[in-house]
Amino acid sequence: ETSITELEERIDMLEREMIDAQSASQRVDRVRFKPSTPSGELVSADGRSTTQLKGRIHMDITSTDDQFKYDGSKDVDNGSVVEGYETVNLRRLRLGVEGKFAQVWEYELQMDFAENEVDLKDALVAYRAIPNNRITFGFQKYAFGLESTNSSAHNMFLERSALDQFAPDRNVGIEWRYAPGKVNFRAGASILADDFIDGGEVEGAVANFRITSPVYQSNSQLVHLGASALYNHFNDDNQESRYRARPDHKWGERMVNTGKFDSKSEINYGVEAAYQYRNLLVMGEYVGSMIDRIDGDSVNLGGFNVQAAYTFTGESWTYRARNGGFRAVSPDNPISQGGWGAFEVAARYSYIDLNSADADPMKDIKGGEQTTMVVGLNWYLEHNLKAQFNYVHAEAKYQDVQTAINADKFDTSSYQFRMAYYF
Amino acid sequence: ETSITELEERIDMLEREMIDAQSASQRVDRVRFKPSTPSGELVSADGRSTTQLKGRIHMDITSTDDQFKYDGSKDVDNGSVVEGYETVNLRRLRLGVEGKFAQVWEYELQMDFAENEVDLKDALVAYRAIPNNRITFGFQKYAFGLESTNSSAHNMFLERSALDQFAPDRNVGIEWRYAPGKVNFRAGASILADDFIDGGEVEGAVANFRITSPVYQSNSQLVHLGASALYNHFNDDNQESRYRARPDHKWGERMVNTGKFDSKSEINYGVEAAYQYRNLLVMGEYVGSMIDRIDGDSVNLGGFNVQAAYTFTGESWTYRARNGGFRAVSPDNPISQGGWGAFEVAARYSYIDLNSADADPMKDIKGGEQTTMVVGLNWYLEHNLKAQFNYVHAEAKYQDVQTAINADKFDTSSYQFRMAYYF
Amino acid sequence: ETSITELEERIDMLEREMIDAQSASQRVDRVRFKPSTPSGELVSADGRSTTQLKGRIHMDITSTDDQFKYDGSKDVDNGSVVEGYETVNLRRLRLGVEGKFAQVWEYELQMDFAENEVDLKDALVAYRAIPNNRITFGFQKYAFGLESTNSSAHNMFLERSALDQFAPDRNVGIEWRYAPGKVNFRAGASILADDFIDGGEVEGAVANFRITSPVYQSNSQLVHLGASALYNHFNDDNQESRYRARPDHKWGERMVNTGKFDSKSEINYGVEAAYQYRNLLVMGEYVGSMIDRIDGDSVNLGGFNVQAAYTFTGESWTYRARNGGFRAVSPDNPISQGGWGAFEVAARYSYIDLNSADADPMKDIKGGEQTTMVVGLNWYLEHNLKAQFNYVHAEAKYQDVQTAINADKFDTSSYQFRMAYYF
Repeated sequence: ETSITELEERIDMLEREMIDAQSASQRVDRVRFKPSTPSGELVSADGRSTTQLKGRIHMDITSTDDQFKYDGSKDVDNGSVVEGYETVNLRRLRLGVEGKFAQVWEYELQMDFAENEVDLKDALVAYRAIPNNRITFGFQKYAFGLESTNSSAHNMFLERSALDQFAPDRNVGIEWRYAPGKVNFRAGASILADDFIDGGEVEGAVANFRITSPVYQSNSQLVHLGASALYNHFNDDNQESRYRARPDHKWGERMVNTGKFDSKSEINYGVEAAYQYRNLLVMGEYVGSMIDRIDGDSVNLGGFNVQAAYTFTGESWTYRARNGGFRAVSPDNPISQGGWGAFEVAARYSYIDLNSADADPMKDIKGGEQTTMVVGLNWYLEHNLKAQFNYVHAEAKYQDVQTAINADKFDTSSYQFRMAYYF
Repeated sequence: ETSITELEERIDMLEREMIDAQSASQRVDRVRFKPSTPSGELVSADGRSTTQLKGRIHMDITSTDDQFKYDGSKDVDNGSVVEGYETVNLRRLRLGVEGKFAQVWEYELQMDFAENEVDLKDALVAYRAIPNNRITFGFQKYAFGLESTNSSAHNMFLERSALDQFAPDRNVGIEWRYAPGKVNFRAGASILADDFIDGGEVEGAVANFRITSPVYQSNSQLVHLGASALYNHFNDDNQESRYRARPDHKWGERMVNTGKFDSKSEINYGVEAAYQYRNLLVMGEYVGSMIDRIDGDSVNLGGFNVQAAYTFTGESWTYRARNGGFRAVSPDNPISQGGWGAFEVAARYSYIDLNSADADPMKDIKGGEQTTMVVGLNWYLEHNLKAQFNYVHAEAKYQDVQTAINADKFDTSSYQFRMAYYF
Repeated sequence: ETSITELEERIDMLEREMIDAQSASQRVDRVRFKPSTPSGELVSADGRSTTQLKGRIHMDITSTDDQFKYDGSKDVDNGSVVEGYETVNLRRLRLGVEGKFAQVWEYELQMDFAENEVDLKDALVAYRAIPNNRITFGFQKYAFGLESTNSSAHNMFLERSALDQFAPDRNVGIEWRYAPGKVNFRAGASILADDFIDGGEVEGAVANFRITSPVYQSNSQLVHLGASALYNHFNDDNQESRYRARPDHKWGERMVNTGKFDSKSEINYGVEAAYQYRNLLVMGEYVGSMIDRIDGDSVNLGGFNVQAAYTFTGESWTYRARNGGFRAVSPDNPISQGGWGAFEVAARYSYIDLNSADADPMKDIKGGEQTTMVVGLNWYLEHNLKAQFNYVHAEAKYQDVQTAINADKFDTSSYQFRMAYYF
């Protein structure tokens, strides 16, 4: 008959193998889902490589009033009135792949296919071996200001305010991010090439930075402060600036517009602040632009915005120290769990001044001033599915830049609806 | 020496852990392949989230005879003869992602890249919490008729018949599907916006429904009946209709064409029937269109088709009650298992009448009549790989709409070959 | 008390279950990462199906001198000088899916989205049931020569030499590959359709083959020899040839150009050789083209290139008998493991002659001659990430084809940088 010792040895062996078997599922190439998102990630056994599909769909229905379209000429009478209309569109249809390789490298490739066109958004590789640091190379977005830096998936309103035009364009370059806890610093250097994608010529160079910090943070409150700047240097055969903006909706006509004017370089700078008290979030920023003309004169443009969201259902926006920005609320009681999701009201006031007086009145920049007011209702059905309603009222004023008299005024309104989904 | 009781306890523990270990593979995020398709699905541990890549490639070689191209004017002499030619193309090159999130939601994103252009096909989110119901939101296809509703991956012939033009366009809207077993009901409401994708204006609204039922079903036989209708309402500044058709192949010229004419609204309606006896499938449908002109007069257009497939090798098409349609055969002896796949002959006769007489002969619609005959041979190499050969003969007749005399006739033929693959 | 026999039986059972549990992870649908690439592959439990995402990004910065652009007319004075400029672009942005289904079939779908356009690269299905054989159907690349057949992900320089224009275009067709060890043979038949993708007409047919062999192979040395040929037959209404080339960089102007001339068919042929000694690789090839004009006269064009790479850090290029080509080095000490990657110098000399004398001097082909010299530095940071620097000097010479006198000469230089990444 078998001895107890023999049995014991076999049980010892089984117990060791069981430990191996139990941990085996952690040691194979596998799939990993985050509870909140529908897109699974492939993860290698050693954790050094990952692959994940990413997507974002923004589908809009917009109704707009008659509105004035201004071409930036000195004479407002050259503008035209465009009749109001209803439109239905895809604002964003992004599809991409991102992941990690060789442990210390990340990669992102994302394209937008909205309007049935291809529009590259990100094509970058990032080096992450140094703790708290990330250095990205490639075609990418550069940090500037609060609303512009925050992902379009997590903005309060359908469109960013007109200040967004002061932020750097996506382009090929390098960005360094240093985020050692309480401070977030990003600095970039990129090539200016407006039609980069079509084999466009290099038109200049851009340097930019943004520094932010959650200067005060308690269980219920947060104060965020930040500053940004960029320097655009134009090549000799491309010395030209233009600033212009739509009335806070993509399908609106441009009501303020400096037209093209000669310039050697631009410095844009901004300050930003945010205050969060539980389910209330208030944010504001100011941006200025100093443009150096060829004859040495300066053009000064700028603007500000203030916005706030109050989430009825009690959820809070999530502060992301890593990005110096906020992530929209995730509903405590989503539709999928029998709830009604989260509801939020939001409002934004923004002002932009594209006028600038010159010693020589012939060289005045007369882009106009625009104020917009947006009132929004956000319904978060699920973590990654929301519906947004915006009412926008915009007013543009054009006046004699020297005397500030004889102002012409035009206003317009629009109603916008979006269904937004991402994975 | 160790007691037997101690050993027993250790074995008890091992047995419990073994049960856990055995079921563990079912409780982790994982990959799931269906036996028939090459594309794996990512599935979360809780089964609430999935992600899967989907694709479809249709590669065609076509040879076409000289043919008549008609522009819809009153005078056939304005048409032109286009010389026959050979062409090789991608008819469909679709790539997409679909899946599930938060258990009760599904999502689909699919684009077509054929002809090196981007063409959105589906961008939708579906709510599935209520048993037998599915409510979809977004850019999608709407149900109408048998051939038009069935997926292009599972049609008998390379192209749908000319009746397809009476079905609603893909657009942004809502569709409700109720499928409690023996009845399939779908009803939709969508926005009419012809160039939706380019930020196009809203041009009207569409309501549609389709109801089908397998009224008789035995082991060897199936009878399917159905009815569909749609109502197109045009906005005041977009009161215009046009119906036209190619001779059942994508690269052919349009031989029937009403040209654009004023209209306030359209009602299209259809009835359909299918009979299946083992490896024989016969289908037919009739569609009519009543168009309401601005002065209150009516335009009446319509047509029908009858088609049948007989699978030599004995396989049957699969009825999908969920969609009210048929799935093409899957070969019992695919190439990969040393067989020769499945072979099938098919034929379709279709007729469309785009003439309509008016009280005022000046307002006659003279789009012409077209009959087409398609003979096909389908070779199913694998579940998801097939080759299709079609011979199409089309004949168009143009006559005085009031008197039905003085008919002009033109005919043309084409040979078409397709390699079709999907994952 | 429990008997030892009972315990023994329970242990027996546990041991059997443990063996099952241990092998279970090999029998489920799963993910599989190769150590070197960031993109995971989905693999079905039976190994018969796989799916994998593939991508390739080439981002370039180029600076070019003034250069001459030649239109292929008889008179060089018709050419124009294009000013030098700097440009930044995506040269390649490929995304695709590939895998296996039903064990014996492979599929590939790959598109390029560079310059924000869609450009199909591969859409094929391959039959692999017969050992050493692979038969591919669809839109694909055909084998011809060493540099042209090798993947752009593994070329020594940013651009292939001008000889690449003699290789067949991607098109719809069939290719057979037979690779029984020491010999690699590929033969293809494809349809000529220049703008295939836009529903283009069939313009002719192409037959091609390539045969290569590693005729000598030791631990430290390898000798590779090969030969290729293609036959282009043009349809009656498309009897036209044109050969032209850029100065070995994508954004340069074409300096040699035959212009369009009548032709019935073309035969292109090439011989190739490569010699590898450890971390040194030398390759060369010669290509000739005989074009049959409508009146029976012949046009003779051709060229050659020689290139070599020496890898400082000691790594070797990998010979791939399966493809008859070489894979770029993978660094022994990548950045991710604290190393500096691999460094390599490379140089290429190429010559192309697009002149051809005719009995009738009016019919001379006067495309010009071009010599280019490229010097390169390749820095392999990781297995799938590299930076490449190229300096190109190109010289074009145009002369009287009959007398070879009165030569005009133009030269140009360019500096090119690439960041290349693939998954």
